[in-house]
Amino acid sequence: MAKVAIVGSGFIGRAWAITYARAGYEVTLWDKLDGAPEAAISYIGDVLGDLEANDLLNGQAPAEVLARVSSQKRLAEALDGALHVQENAPEQIELKQSLWSEMDEIADPQTILASSTSALLPSKFTEHLKGRDRCLVAHPINPPYLIRAVEVVPSPWTSDDAMEKTRQLMIKAGQQPIMMTGEIDGFIMNRLQGALLEEAFRLVDGGHASAEDVDIGIREGLAARWAFMGPFETIDLNAPAGVRDYAQRYQGMFANMFTQMLTRVNWDGPVMDAVESNRRERLPANKLEERQKWRDRRLMALASHKRQQEAKLGE
Amino acid sequence: MAKVAIVGSGFIGRAWAITYARAGYEVTLWDKLDGAPEAAISYIGDVLGDLEANDLLNGQAPAEVLARVSSQKRLAEALDGALHVQENAPEQIELKQSLWSEMDEIADPQTILASSTSALLPSKFTEHLKGRDRCLVAHPINPPYLIRAVEVVPSPWTSDDAMEKTRQLMIKAGQQPIMMTGEIDGFIMNRLQGALLEEAFRLVDGGHASAEDVDIGIREGLAARWAFMGPFETIDLNAPAGVRDYAQRYQGMFANMFTQMLTRVNWDGPVMDAVESNRRERLPANKLEERQKWRDRRLMALASHKRQQEAKLGE
Repeated sequence: MAKVAIVGSGFIGRAWAITYARAGYEVTLWDKLDGAPEAAISYIGDVLGDLEANDLLNGQAPAEVLARVSSQKRLAEALDGALHVQENAPEQIELKQSLWSEMDEIADPQTILASSTSALLPSKFTEHLKGRDRCLVAHPINPPYLIRAVEVVPSPWTSDDAMEKTRQLMIKAGQQPIMMTGEIDGFIMNRLQGALLEEAFRLVDGGHASAEDVDIGIREGLAARWAFMGPFETIDLNAPAGVRDYAQRYQGMFANMFTQMLTRVNWDGPVMDAVESNRRERLPANKLEERQKWRDRRLMALASHKRQQEAKLGE
Repeated sequence: MAKVAIVGSGFIGRAWAITYARAGYEVTLWDKLDGAPEAAISYIGDVLGDLEANDLLNGQAPAEVLARVSSQKRLAEALDGALHVQENAPEQIELKQSLWSEMDEIADPQTILASSTSALLPSKFTEHLKGRDRCLVAHPINPPYLIRAVEVVPSPWTSDDAMEKTRQLMIKAGQQPIMMTGEIDGFIMNRLQGALLEEAFRLVDGGHASAEDVDIGIREGLAARWAFMGPFETIDLNAPAGVRDYAQRYQGMFANMFTQMLTRVNWDGPVMDAVESNRRERLPANKLEERQKWRDRRLMALASHKRQQEAKLGE
């Protein structure tokens, strides 16, 4: 089976390793830090058990999937013969530039090099590379084995061939690729998240809502439909004749709001006192870690629910 | 048991009737149109069967809940002795003003009058009323028996007592009220939805994404966490030291985007051709109704999933 190399075995690298191994790829981990891949493999073993319990291993046994994951001490050995390299280093531009120089020198010419970065445009760390046409970003929402969206982002010099190979790999890995036509700050998902958060901070800043009010409005309100349809399908089904009908009926209602939204809010300004104190009332700082574990269990249960419903009622 | 009157028995009125009857209230329907309440009651019977099948009736039999729903031919009889009136008339200001004059004249002085409006500020149809202090908006996301958020919105003259009684009623009815301190265009939820949609349309308008790309990014990406946490809890758990840490780490990444977002997009302008053709490729116009039924089944399954998970892992 084809091989995928994971460069950087922290939380994103590990999650990618699970994703690719579940789909049948041979996965080789490498990390700058000695011992890190071994820690990752032990972590992966635990997660595979949970995934099996939630029927998220496509009928495979955890040991069968785990047997596809190994590690290498040297980057060259990790990359050797790989179809695809998934890089998950810290979001520091100098570090990425130097790592990508090394990866581009070592990797076979036909190997695709993909970064998991959420914050850096691919042009910023690939411009100087000889093989820059096979370089791109494949940005997941962590963890990709539960959350399927992946933004595939080309730099101005990424080849169509590299984009197409990545698209096919993502589909084989069980992901839903968003194929971008160019790079743009925040890609698609962080722009949508940013726009929503900006209005959320503005509502708190204006004294109209608490952080918890916003969370109720999304978690007990809007996100119920968004979680299986997205916002465009939601409005397409919310007016008798579809999305154009919706825009014609309701844009007027929204128009007033938009003139009130054309200013920036400093998230870390005075509004943060209100947001932070509301959050800490609901969740003390010393419970953050425990709550992250709860989130991971809820995410896994939701992914399992979605699979079941798609099998039963359709996607 | 206390009585709730439903004024207007279309899709929102029916859904409220189910919500209140499930919680044990006696529900009386009234509609301007003869025969409409009877049609609503027949519809309610069908939905109650589906709710029982999804374990969403709190252990009650459908017939038991249905027995609490009745109708009246005259508005005065429908309102007589009601604790709370939930009005669901069309979103036309003159119609609401005249209906609310009649309701305020007829209803006992201690009855709370609530509108389900999403588009009209409560001050616009209650200013002229003698009992305007007991008038407010209780805006659901339809259907409230599956989606718990309700915005409770006061006009400048709504009494604290009316707000508090409505808050208590909503909690007893199984909802999660968002208690607003004043009226504002779009309340909380439509402002958040509007901000997200505005950026979604801008991304399509700029050629960066298709409508489906946006839907993937939300449905297979961001909304997985939002559906059980909301956006503030999401970022609170996405940085080691919580929400302030998140803002300090990532606001810089978002800052560039915001300067690109300070313009308006006309949803019904040229961008709509791209959005509509992408939607119609995925879902022909003659399949809209069938897909709405699919949506309703998926929503019910998701509501059931959330209840189960909350019982098992906590809210």
